Amino acid sequence: MASNEDRVGKFLRRLLQSRSSAEIVQSLSRSDEPLPPRIPGQDPVSDDDVESRWQLLKLDEKSKASLYEHGAGGSLEPYRHNVENCIGTVKVPVGLAGPLRIRGMFASGDFHVPLATTEAALVASYSRGARVISEAGGCVSILLHEGMRRTPGFGLSSLTEAGLFAIWCIEQGDVLRAVAAKTTRHGELIDIGMAIEGNHVYLILDYTTGDASGQNMVTIATQAVCEYIMEHAAIRPQFYYVEANLSGDKKATAHSFVSVRGKKVSAEVTLPAELLASRLHTTPQELDRYWKMSAIGAIQSGSIGAQGHVANALAAFYIACGQDPACVAESAVGVTRFEVTAKGDLYAAVTLPSIVVGTVGGGTALPSQHACLEIMGLAGPGNAPALAEVCAALVLAGELSITAALCSGDFTRAHQKLARGHDAPVKDDAR
Amino acid sequence: MASNEDRVGKFLRRLLQSRSSAEIVQSLSRSDEPLPPRIPGQDPVSDDDVESRWQLLKLDEKSKASLYEHGAGGSLEPYRHNVENCIGTVKVPVGLAGPLRIRGMFASGDFHVPLATTEAALVASYSRGARVISEAGGCVSILLHEGMRRTPGFGLSSLTEAGLFAIWCIEQGDVLRAVAAKTTRHGELIDIGMAIEGNHVYLILDYTTGDASGQNMVTIATQAVCEYIMEHAAIRPQFYYVEANLSGDKKATAHSFVSVRGKKVSAEVTLPAELLASRLHTTPQELDRYWKMSAIGAIQSGSIGAQGHVANALAAFYIACGQDPACVAESAVGVTRFEVTAKGDLYAAVTLPSIVVGTVGGGTALPSQHACLEIMGLAGPGNAPALAEVCAALVLAGELSITAALCSGDFTRAHQKLARGHDAPVKDDAR
Amino acid sequence: MASNEDRVGKFLRRLLQSRSSAEIVQSLSRSDEPLPPRIPGQDPVSDDDVESRWQLLKLDEKSKASLYEHGAGGSLEPYRHNVENCIGTVKVPVGLAGPLRIRGMFASGDFHVPLATTEAALVASYSRGARVISEAGGCVSILLHEGMRRTPGFGLSSLTEAGLFAIWCIEQGDVLRAVAAKTTRHGELIDIGMAIEGNHVYLILDYTTGDASGQNMVTIATQAVCEYIMEHAAIRPQFYYVEANLSGDKKATAHSFVSVRGKKVSAEVTLPAELLASRLHTTPQELDRYWKMSAIGAIQSGSIGAQGHVANALAAFYIACGQDPACVAESAVGVTRFEVTAKGDLYAAVTLPSIVVGTVGGGTALPSQHACLEIMGLAGPGNAPALAEVCAALVLAGELSITAALCSGDFTRAHQKLARGHDAPVKDDAR
Amino acid sequence: MASNEDRVGKFLRRLLQSRSSAEIVQSLSRSDEPLPPRIPGQDPVSDDDVESRWQLLKLDEKSKASLYEHGAGGSLEPYRHNVENCIGTVKVPVGLAGPLRIRGMFASGDFHVPLATTEAALVASYSRGARVISEAGGCVSILLHEGMRRTPGFGLSSLTEAGLFAIWCIEQGDVLRAVAAKTTRHGELIDIGMAIEGNHVYLILDYTTGDASGQNMVTIATQAVCEYIMEHAAIRPQFYYVEANLSGDKKATAHSFVSVRGKKVSAEVTLPAELLASRLHTTPQELDRYWKMSAIGAIQSGSIGAQGHVANALAAFYIACGQDPACVAESAVGVTRFEVTAKGDLYAAVTLPSIVVGTVGGGTALPSQHACLEIMGLAGPGNAPALAEVCAALVLAGELSITAALCSGDFTRAHQKLARGHDAPVKDDAR
Repeated sequence: MASNEDRVGKFLRRLLQSRSSAEIVQSLSRSDEPLPPRIPGQDPVSDDDVESRWQLLKLDEKSKASLYEHGAGGSLEPYRHNVENCIGTVKVPVGLAGPLRIRGMFASGDFHVPLATTEAALVASYSRGARVISEAGGCVSILLHEGMRRTPGFGLSSLTEAGLFAIWCIEQGDVLRAVAAKTTRHGELIDIGMAIEGNHVYLILDYTTGDASGQNMVTIATQAVCEYIMEHAAIRPQFYYVEANLSGDKKATAHSFVSVRGKKVSAEVTLPAELLASRLHTTPQELDRYWKMSAIGAIQSGSIGAQGHVANALAAFYIACGQDPACVAESAVGVTRFEVTAKGDLYAAVTLPSIVVGTVGGGTALPSQHACLEIMGLAGPGNAPALAEVCAALVLAGELSITAALCSGDFTRAHQKLARGHDAPVKDDAR
Repeated sequence: MASNEDRVGKFLRRLLQSRSSAEIVQSLSRSDEPLPPRIPGQDPVSDDDVESRWQLLKLDEKSKASLYEHGAGGSLEPYRHNVENCIGTVKVPVGLAGPLRIRGMFASGDFHVPLATTEAALVASYSRGARVISEAGGCVSILLHEGMRRTPGFGLSSLTEAGLFAIWCIEQGDVLRAVAAKTTRHGELIDIGMAIEGNHVYLILDYTTGDASGQNMVTIATQAVCEYIMEHAAIRPQFYYVEANLSGDKKATAHSFVSVRGKKVSAEVTLPAELLASRLHTTPQELDRYWKMSAIGAIQSGSIGAQGHVANALAAFYIACGQDPACVAESAVGVTRFEVTAKGDLYAAVTLPSIVVGTVGGGTALPSQHACLEIMGLAGPGNAPALAEVCAALVLAGELSITAALCSGDFTRAHQKLARGHDAPVKDDAR
Repeated sequence: MASNEDRVGKFLRRLLQSRSSAEIVQSLSRSDEPLPPRIPGQDPVSDDDVESRWQLLKLDEKSKASLYEHGAGGSLEPYRHNVENCIGTVKVPVGLAGPLRIRGMFASGDFHVPLATTEAALVASYSRGARVISEAGGCVSILLHEGMRRTPGFGLSSLTEAGLFAIWCIEQGDVLRAVAAKTTRHGELIDIGMAIEGNHVYLILDYTTGDASGQNMVTIATQAVCEYIMEHAAIRPQFYYVEANLSGDKKATAHSFVSVRGKKVSAEVTLPAELLASRLHTTPQELDRYWKMSAIGAIQSGSIGAQGHVANALAAFYIACGQDPACVAESAVGVTRFEVTAKGDLYAAVTLPSIVVGTVGGGTALPSQHACLEIMGLAGPGNAPALAEVCAALVLAGELSITAALCSGDFTRAHQKLARGHDAPVKDDAR
Repeated sequence: MASNEDRVGKFLRRLLQSRSSAEIVQSLSRSDEPLPPRIPGQDPVSDDDVESRWQLLKLDEKSKASLYEHGAGGSLEPYRHNVENCIGTVKVPVGLAGPLRIRGMFASGDFHVPLATTEAALVASYSRGARVISEAGGCVSILLHEGMRRTPGFGLSSLTEAGLFAIWCIEQGDVLRAVAAKTTRHGELIDIGMAIEGNHVYLILDYTTGDASGQNMVTIATQAVCEYIMEHAAIRPQFYYVEANLSGDKKATAHSFVSVRGKKVSAEVTLPAELLASRLHTTPQELDRYWKMSAIGAIQSGSIGAQGHVANALAAFYIACGQDPACVAESAVGVTRFEVTAKGDLYAAVTLPSIVVGTVGGGTALPSQHACLEIMGLAGPGNAPALAEVCAALVLAGELSITAALCSGDFTRAHQKLARGHDAPVKDDAR
C-alpha cells in the first residue's frame, strides 16, 4: 500500500493548499459533543418504526419517497428477516441478457438472465456475448465440485499439545460429522482438514449445504462441533473461535482458489471464426493474442487467477437474484482461456472455483429477487447447482464480449456512448 | 482449483447416482434447435418496450409486479442511461447503521449510514460497532492517497524496440498528459508507469478523477493517449489494447494493494476497556489474541491483505449509494489491526487501499441511491473524498463488531436468531 | 514489474548518457560471427576432459587452481553423477551454529549445525539464536506432514471429455498407485487430486519419497502413470505433459503453502524474559511489538506467508548438506509468530510447509556434504525426517536472533562490523 | 498449510505405529541436562581455532579432510570476513554451460557460464539451451531498471500523527538523501515511498548500489536516515525499526515483483522452427501449447509470476559466482513467454524483476568464486549490470531447454539417465 515520493508529495501539497496544518489537526481531534439520539424503533420494518427513523433523518419528501412510500403498496414486511433498522428499499434497475443457450449438467436450455446494475453498457455487453454463444449452439457448463467452509481456531498450550489435539480431532471424524448433522437437515460435513501453526490448530471444515449458499448453516454446525470438542477433547484447548479467518469468507484467497469455496464451475464454447467476424468484429487470432497479453497483465498485477471482469457478471447477477453481493469479493476469481483451434475457430473457457449461490435462504425469497429467479425457472429448492452453471455461462458471455470489444476497439466507444448518454447506439451486430 | 482424490470421488459418485454417463453426455451435447426470439425493444426503458419484454418472459402478474408496475408511479425513465433491456427494478432493503461519529479530513460529524442488504444481522452488527466508536469519541478517518488506473498494452517487434518505445513514452510525458486532459475537465493524468515484458510494453496510467469513481473517464482519456501514441510514436507498435489487464479493474490484486486504486483511506479508534466490556462483552486482550490468530489465518489462506469482512460493509454501502458493486471485488482488501495500548485499552485501525467511490456519475443520480447519499449529506460534487472516509469508518465499525462477536460467542447466536427468524433478539447491549 | 515515470525517466537518462541510441541498437543487433568451439570433453569429470575445458577458458593458473588442482588430490570422480562439463569445485566456507538443543519427534539432542555461506554475520547470528534456545531447555520441532508433488497435464477435446476423463482417473486410483509403485521401492503415491480447467485436466499427484527429497523419484513414477493413462484411458487425451507447472517445483506458491510440498514442520520455544534480556538485549514486549509491525509489513509486501529471513538458514544449510539449493525458492516460505505469554515470557514459533530435504540422493553422498550430515549424525537412510526438524529449529534460532537484533539496534551494527571487516566484534553476550 | 482428513489421518497413523503417545510426549519434553560446551575459538578461521572446533565434533579423519586439510594449502584465511566459527569449506562441483551468445546493453559476446550444482542434468540442460540460442544468433538481454530496498517502520501515537510525520518525511527528501549519501560512496537513495497503516508508517527507501548487490550498504544508509529522523522529526516516533519487513528481503513478494528489487532484466530470442526441430526435437506450436497449459498451471498454483525453473539457473549461478544464494528466494520469480511468430518461428522471452547480483562485496572476492566471475570476464567493479544480463540470458536458455524436454518427452529420460547413473547419455543433438 505504498506510494512513491513524487506522487505522495503532490497529493499532500494539494491537500495542504486548502487548509492549514492547524485546521487539519483541529478537524481530526476528538469531539465530546453529545451524540445524536440512537436510531429509533425496535421493530425492523413496521411502518411506525420506519417513520420514526425518517423523522430523525429529516430528508425532503421526494427523497424519502424514492426509498419508502408509506401506504402505497410499500409495506416492508417481506424484509423482516433480512434487515434491521429498515428505512425502505433502494431500487436497482434490472436488464435482461440473452437468450443464453446452456448445455449443463443441471442447467439446460435457453436462459434470459436478469442483471441488476447501474452501469451503462453492462447488460448490452453480456447480452451480446450471450447471443453469440447461443448462435454457436450454446455453451457447456459443468458443476465440478462444491464445499462451503468454516475454519474454527483452537489455542493449545504447546505445539506438542496441538499435535495431540489434532490427532484426537482426526480420530473423532465420524463423531464430529454426527454432531454437525444434528444442526441441519440440508448440510453435511464432508471434510475435516487442519493446519497446525505452533500451538494453534485451525480446523478446516468443509460442508455441502443443499440448495442454500450455506454460510449460516455451516456457522451453526461449526459452533456445535466446537462446543463438542471443547467438552470432550482429550486435551482441552485454552480457547477457541468459531471462525479464525482461514475460511476465505468474503475475500479472495489463494486457498479457496486452489480448492473450492461454494461451487466450482467451468464453462466452454467453441465459436466459428465467421461468427466472431460477423457478430464481434474480430478474429480467433486476435482474441488469442489479447489473451496472452492480458493473462500476463493479470500475472503481473498479482491477481488471484487470471480473468477479465468476472465481477461485473456476478455483482449484477447476485443482486438481481437475492444472493449475497459481499460474496463477489470471493467469487470474482477464476481463469479465462482463449485459444485458436486446429480448425481456426476460437475455443473459450472460464473456470470459477468460488461461486457462492443458493436458491433458498438469504434474499432469494424476497419478492423482486424471487421473480428474477423465476425468470430463469430456478426459484426454490433443487436449483442451486443449475444456478451456479448459469453463473459460469454468463461469465463466459461477458469475457467474450469485453475481450472482443477490446480487440475491435468497440470498448471505449461503447462506454462513451451508453454511459455518457449520447444518441448513437453502441456498435453492435444487431443495431 | 484442485480437489483431492477422496472428495472428488465422493462428489462424482453422488453425481453419477442420479443419471447415467450416457444421459450426461446427452445433456451436454450441442443443440441445434432454433433459438428463441431476441429480446425485444430498442428503447432501454420505455413502457412499451418493457412490456414487450415481459410478454416474452411469461411470468405471472404478481411476480412481474414485484419488478415492474406499469403506471403505478413506476416509470423507468430515470434508468435510461444506466441499463439496457430493462424490465423493472429489484428492491433491496436499506437499514441504517449509526450514529457513526467521524473525525476526518473531509468527513466530519455524526453519520447515519444507509446499508442495502438482504443478509440478516448485518445492519445490526455495523450499527453496534458504529455506536461503540461514537461513544468513544469517534474515529479518525483519513484519505491518504488516490489514483484511478488504466493499463494499455502495446506490442512491439522486439525487446529492443520495446525499450526504445518506452523511452519515447516517458519523454512524451507532458504531451500525453495534455492529450488526456483534452478528454475531461475533471480528471488528470498524474503518473505514467510502465512494465516491459519481452516485446510487450504495458503503460500504467494513473489519474485523479474529481468526484467520479472515474472508470469511464480514464478509459476515454486512455483511448486518446493510445491513439496519440499510435499516430506519433517514433517506433510504432504493431498493435495495442486500451486495457491489458494490469490495472486491477474489478479484481483484487497485489499491485493495487501495494499502491492505490481509487482511494486509499485509513481509520482508527481507541476504545476504553470498560466500553468494550459493557457494549461488546469482551476485552482488549481477547481482541488482540483473536487478531493474531485471524491475521495468521488470513496469511495462511493466501488472501491479499488481512481483514475480517470488509466486503460486507462495502457491498451494502455501494449498493445503497449508487456505487459500482462489482468494485467490491477490488475494494474488499485491506489490513485490520487490533492491539492493546499501554493503558490497557484497545487500539483498532483499518487501512483500505482500493476504495472505488464517487458522488457523481454511475448510479449516484438515481432516485433512491441519491437519497441514500443525501442521508449522509454527501450527494453531488465535492463529496467523494468524504464518502471514502465514511467507508473506512464504517469498515472499522464492522471489524470491531464481528471480532467482538467472535470473541464473546455472540457471532453464531446473532446469525442464528436474526437469520432464522427466531423471536429472541440478538444479544446486544441496547436490547 | 512496473516502474513509475520519474524513476524510469531518471534511470533511462543515466543509461543514455553513456552512449547514443545508435550505439545501443548496434550492441543489441544480431551477430552472425562464427560461434566459439563447443565445450570439449564427453566425460563429465575425467582429468583429460577437465583440462581440455580449461584450455578453452584461458584463465591464469592461480584462478584455475582455486577451482581445480590436477593431481593434488583433486580428482573430480566423486562428482561424476552430479554435474556435467565439470571444471572443478567452488569452495564455500562452512561455519558451525550451536549447540542447538532440539526435542523433536525424530531429531533429539544437541546439534552443531553446519552452515555454508559467504555472508558475514550469518553464522554468528544463527549461533546466537541457537544458544539462547538451548539455554531455555531447547525447542520442540515436529514433522507435521509430508508429500512431494508432480502435476501432469492432459489436453482433452472438450470440457465434457475432461470431466469423463477425470472420473476415469479417480476410479483407477488403485491401479495408478500400483503403476507408480513399480518404479520405486522407496516412494508411494498417496493422493490423486485434480484440477479441471476447461478441456484441460491437471492431476495433482502427491507421493512419499522415503529418505530422498524425491523430485526425480516422483518424476519417474509420474511418467509411468502418464504412460499408463495414455494407453488405457477410456477417453484418450490428445496430449499430455509429465509436469504442467502446478506442482510448485522450484518456486514459492500459495498452493504448496496451503498444503505441503516436501515436509511440513513446526518448531516452538518459550524464552524467559531474563534470558532475552541477558542474551539478546531485548524484551518479550518489544519482540511482540516488532512481530506485529513486521507481519503487517509482510502482508503489505504480498509475500507468501509472513517470516523474517528463513531463506538465510535454508540456503546455508542446503548447500552445506548436499540438498538442492534451488529449492530455497520453494522452501523459504512460512509463518513466524512471537507473543508474550501470560507469565510475561516470550512464545516463539515457526511453521514451514515446504522443507525439501533428504539424506540420500542428490548431493548427500558427496564427500564434504556427507561430512556435514555426519556432523549432525544424520547422514544416510532413516534420517530425512530428523533433518527436516533440524531445519525448522535452525530457522527458529535465526528468526529470534535477527528480530532481537532489529529490536535492540544490533542489526546494523553487526552487519557493519562483520561484513566490512572492522576489528570490533559483533555485540554479543559472549564476547 | 492445510491438510485434509484422510491424508492427515494416514500420516498420523503411520507416525503412531512406530511408538506410543507416551513415548512421543517423552521425546518432546523439556530437557535440563547440561549443555555441551560452546563452540570454541574466537578467531573465525585461524588453524588453531578451526582445529579446536574439529576436536569438539569428533568426526573421523576422512570426513574431516573433505572439509578441512590443515597445512595442505588449506588455509581458511581468505574467508575471514565471510563466515564465523569456520570448520572448512564445502566443495560444490562446477560445470560449464555455453557458449551463450548475448547481445545486451552491458553484456556482449559469447559466454561460458559456470554453474555450481549437485543436481545431475542441470548443466547439460542449460548448456543445451545456451547453444540453441547461440546458433540462432544470440539473445538480447536488457537491464531495465534497478533499485535495492530497505523499509524502516515507525510507530506514532495516532493516525493523525502518522500523517503529519509522513508529510514531514516527504518534505525532507533532499535532506534524507544527503544523510544517506554520507554513508556510502557507491549507493544513492533514489526514491522515498511510504505506506501508512493506522499509526504505523513504513518508509520504502530505494537505492542504487553501484556494483554491489548492496544489502549491507542500504542497511547502513537506512540506519543513518532513521537516526536522523528520530533526532530531527517535527513529530518524534515512539519507536522505529531499521527494517519492518516490507522490503521483500530474502523472500518472494508481489511488491518486489510489481516494482523491482535489485535489477530487473528481460531477455528474448527468436528461434527458427528448423533449429527447434533439429536441436530440441519439438516445434514452436508445441512449445506455445505447453506455455499456455503451464502458465495456467502456475496461475492455479498461486505462484508470483509464471515461469518454469528460474531457481535452478539462479541457485547454481549465485553459488558459483559468490552471490548470496539466500536471494534465490526473492530472485526466482518472473515471467516466461513463448509464442509462435507470424513466420512460424518461436518467440521466447523471460523477464526477471528481482535479480540480486554484484561483482564486488559478498563472496565475489573469494578465490574460487572470483575465478568463476573471471571465466566470464565479469570480476570486479563495473560489471554488475552485465552480470544481471547474463543471468537473464541463462534463465532463458533453461526455460527453453526444460520446456522442449517436457514437450519431446526427454525430460524424464534425461533425469533418469544422468541422475541414476546409467551409462546412456542424455538424448541430445550433439551426442
